[in-house]
Formats: sequence, C-alpha cells, structure tokens
Amino acid sequence: MRQPVLVASIDGVGTKLKIAFAVNKHDTVGADLVNHCINDIAVLGARPLFFLDYIGCEKLQPRVFDELLRGFSRACRSAGCALIGGETAQMPGMYRKGEYDLAGCIVGVIDRARIIDGRKIKPGDIVLGLASNGLHTNGYSLARKILLEKMRLNVRSLLPGSAITVGEELLRVHKSYEPLLRRAPNGIIKGLAHITGGGLIDNVPRILPKNCDAVIETKSWRVPRIFKILQENGNVDAAEMYQVFNMGIGMVAVVSERDAQRAASILRAKQIGRIERGTGKTRLML
Amino acid sequence: MRQPVLVASIDGVGTKLKIAFAVNKHDTVGADLVNHCINDIAVLGARPLFFLDYIGCEKLQPRVFDELLRGFSRACRSAGCALIGGETAQMPGMYRKGEYDLAGCIVGVIDRARIIDGRKIKPGDIVLGLASNGLHTNGYSLARKILLEKMRLNVRSLLPGSAITVGEELLRVHKSYEPLLRRAPNGIIKGLAHITGGGLIDNVPRILPKNCDAVIETKSWRVPRIFKILQENGNVDAAEMYQVFNMGIGMVAVVSERDAQRAASILRAKQIGRIERGTGKTRLML
Repeated sequence: MRQPVLVASIDGVGTKLKIAFAVNKHDTVGADLVNHCINDIAVLGARPLFFLDYIGCEKLQPRVFDELLRGFSRACRSAGCALIGGETAQMPGMYRKGEYDLAGCIVGVIDRARIIDGRKIKPGDIVLGLASNGLHTNGYSLARKILLEKMRLNVRSLLPGSAITVGEELLRVHKSYEPLLRRAPNGIIKGLAHITGGGLIDNVPRILPKNCDAVIETKSWRVPRIFKILQENGNVDAAEMYQVFNMGIGMVAVVSERDAQRAASILRAKQIGRIERGTGKTRLML
Repeated sequence: MRQPVLVASIDGVGTKLKIAFAVNKHDTVGADLVNHCINDIAVLGARPLFFLDYIGCEKLQPRVFDELLRGFSRACRSAGCALIGGETAQMPGMYRKGEYDLAGCIVGVIDRARIIDGRKIKPGDIVLGLASNGLHTNGYSLARKILLEKMRLNVRSLLPGSAITVGEELLRVHKSYEPLLRRAPNGIIKGLAHITGGGLIDNVPRILPKNCDAVIETKSWRVPRIFKILQENGNVDAAEMYQVFNMGIGMVAVVSERDAQRAASILRAKQIGRIERGTGKTRLML
C-alpha cells in the first residue's frame, strides 16, 4: 500500500439479542456483531485487521460466554481478522438476569487511492443489490412486536408456511459481504452502501452525490418470505417496510453501465435500479 | 517511526455508572471511559490515535447524550486523540429507564523498538507509584454497598470528615497518565502497570519477569481518606482493600535504581517499593 488509511467502526446487534436470550443460543449473535462491523468498513473498500468485543452483563454463564466467543472467533477467522481483545463487564444491578449487551469495534485498512466513496457516481450508473439472508440485525423491535405479540408466536413456533421456527429465522447470521467484495477488480465499484437501520431509503443516499438519485425498482428482486409475513401481519405500509428492514438486499453497489454485467456476476448481485439526475435521495418504485 | 505497531483496547466504566445515574451528571463518566482506555495502552508506551464510543440504552435524553459526548470529547482533546465515531443503540426492554451502558475502544501506536513490556525488570529496580485521585473506575460495587447501604449515605450526603459529597467523591474523573508518561525520556521506564480491578496485587505481576517480585511498602504513601472510610466502615481487611481498590496509586512504573530519582521527579511519582528476587508476585508490606 502506498498510503494506508486506517478505518474503524463500533456497533452492536440491537434487540436481536432478545431472540438469542429467548432461544438461549448465543454463537450467532456473536457472529452477527463481527459481520456487521466488517460490512461497515467493507463499504469503503477496507479489509479488516482486528476486532475487539465488549460484553456487558449482570453475570455471564460460562456456556453463554463460550458460545459468544465461538461466534466472534468463527466470524473473525473467516474474514482473516484478528480477535485481539475484549472486555466482559459483570455489573450487578445493570442488566436483567441472563441478559447482556454486546459492542464490537473493528479496525481495517485501505490504500488511500482505493477508497470507495461514491464520488464518481453519475446518472446512468447501475444499482446492484446483493442478497441478504434475512433481517440481518435491523428491525428487530418491530419484528418482535409483530411475530411475538400480535401473531402470538414464540421462538419455537414454526414460521407460517415454512419448515423453520421463528427463532431460527430471526437468528440467521448477518451476512458478511467482504469475501464477495474482495473479488471485485479495483475501481470497478463506485459506491457501496450497507443496508442497515433506515433500509434502502436512508442508507443508499449516504454515497450519492448531491445531484443524483438512486431509483430502485422493488419488483426487480424476490422479497424473502419473512418480510411478507411481517408486512401482512403487521399491517405495515411499504414505505415503512423499506425504511425499517433490508427487504432482501443487504448491500448495494453502484457501478458504471459498462461494468454492470461483469460486476453483477462477480458480486452475485442483481440489477435493482439505476442512478438518475436528482437531489441525493432514494426513489422507490413500488 | 521505524516499525509502527498498532495497539488497541476496549473497556467500560462498570458500576460507576450507577453513581452518574444517581447524581444525574454524565460528562465525568464519559471522560472516565476515555481516560481508562488511554491508560490501558499508555502502559505499552503507546500514544492514542483515535477513540470510538458505544452507548447502549433504553432511550437517551438529549441532555444526557450531550453530557456524555462532552466528556468523551474533552478527554479525547486533552490527549490529542480523535473521537472518530460512535454508536448509540436505543434498545427497548434492555436497559432500565434512564440508564445506559458505555463501551469505548481506543487505538494507538508505538514504535516496536520502544514498546514497554517489563522484560528488562530485574532485582534492585525501583517501583514508583503515581497518585490516583480517587477510586478511578474500580471497586464501585463494594464502595456503593458500604457507603449507600451500610452507612446509609446517599450521593448528596457529605462524605464524613470532608467538605464534598459522596457523589462528588465517587465521580472524580479517572486520571489520564498519558501526559506525564509522555514526558519520560525513551528507555527510562522498564514497565508500567495501570492499577484497575485487582489492584496492586493483580496488576503489577502482569509486567514482572517470572523471577521477580514487586515488594510494595504500603506505608510509603498516604492512602486517601475515601479508602480509609471504606475500609473502616465496611470492615474490609487490608488484603481485600488492596485487591479491590487502587488505594491511591493509579499507575505503577518500574525503573532502574540509577534512574529512580529523575524518573520520580518527571512522573511526579513516589518510590513505593522495590523489585526483589521472587516468583512474579506482588508482596505487600502492610
């Protein structure tokens, strides 16, 4: 690298933890924490160097700690990222019995000349969508309200029309896109947005120049069943759905029209929209 | 730097937070978080580069957020450390109303040849103690039990024999030793231990070679009044006191006998003990 630039991010997994508590399975949220962080710096083109975890709790059972650590280390190992430290803070009177909160901090590196920042995005460019594998780590408060309160399911119930349980569906591990993104040749990707809280509506504008909109054709991909169940049973309107949930798209890449087909194939992505002249917004075509 | 080495640490402030909640003052715990992290990497000789914070909460009042941020930024600024990011996770049903947890992650840098690791410590070396200004961030569960439950004080009570309140005493900001340590000429300090949970008893051995003990003369410094109040009213034996609390010594530096006087003057430290042949333990002379 000519001019290595360090990039860092800190994050949690939100109320997805509540599902882990209910199922009493803790390795997957450990991996969620790492993968969420990896994606957050991968959008700049950075590769992860090292990760640190923080576990706040009342008192942690050794089995729970082991599972969390297994999740952290599995996800770190597959990203070639060192798990260099952590802190487990046992705080009487702060957390509910058996509960904990997680925070993770990742540091990565990127050569300055190769930083992906959306600056070169222009009208005519293509918006590619990389599939998510479920809710990832966003929208859990609303999802829990609909599935567990309104529909009166529990984590062991079968998800309607499905062979897996609510708990299994909701604990699917947040996908790391770093292995796919790493395969893309230099310069081919103009902008990357990790679709987290705020969905396509709030996350894509982060990388758009002020004179561009991203026009997203929501009919261009198959929205996974879980989101349809949430929308119908929660009576949630489409605009809210696309702001709370990823709706099946976990990462968005913007490429030139010329590179679109090649990039889509390398990233295993689908064209889901196009860049048009605008004011820096996402326009959803429902 | 010839071979820059990145070092990182993640930590929280433990149940000192409960005092901040009771006093409803939040800037000091923000600064505690940063300074604790700074000291944790300063013991390797590293200077801080950047810091990230995580706030987990039910819902955070804007005033509380502002105070926390003021604490983070004040402490970062005085250390020349960039506050580059953070995450505030509002999680319904995870935290008690008005409460939050904090985690902070710091990344610093040190030239490989200048890493302070205790390897050169040998019998005859001098143990210097750098004064703490109170409990820093350790021993709060026991301190709260003694002061608030056993002695039935509250955070607004005057501390016995003192003109300040219990809340003021317990919220004193964890001291950053980085400005003092930075003044020491290269190579003069052989080992540094940040005195956190585990006190002098557990923290000093981390830097001792296997054939050395640190013999600490506890009469060689004035133990601050707060620790005496805790010991007497809590009926805590001395060994436990020195394992739970810093007892007035927030940082320990080991130097050669030749450099001792000069180092003590630069670091504003006191000789509190000596390295003797041993097995890698702290021996407390009470």
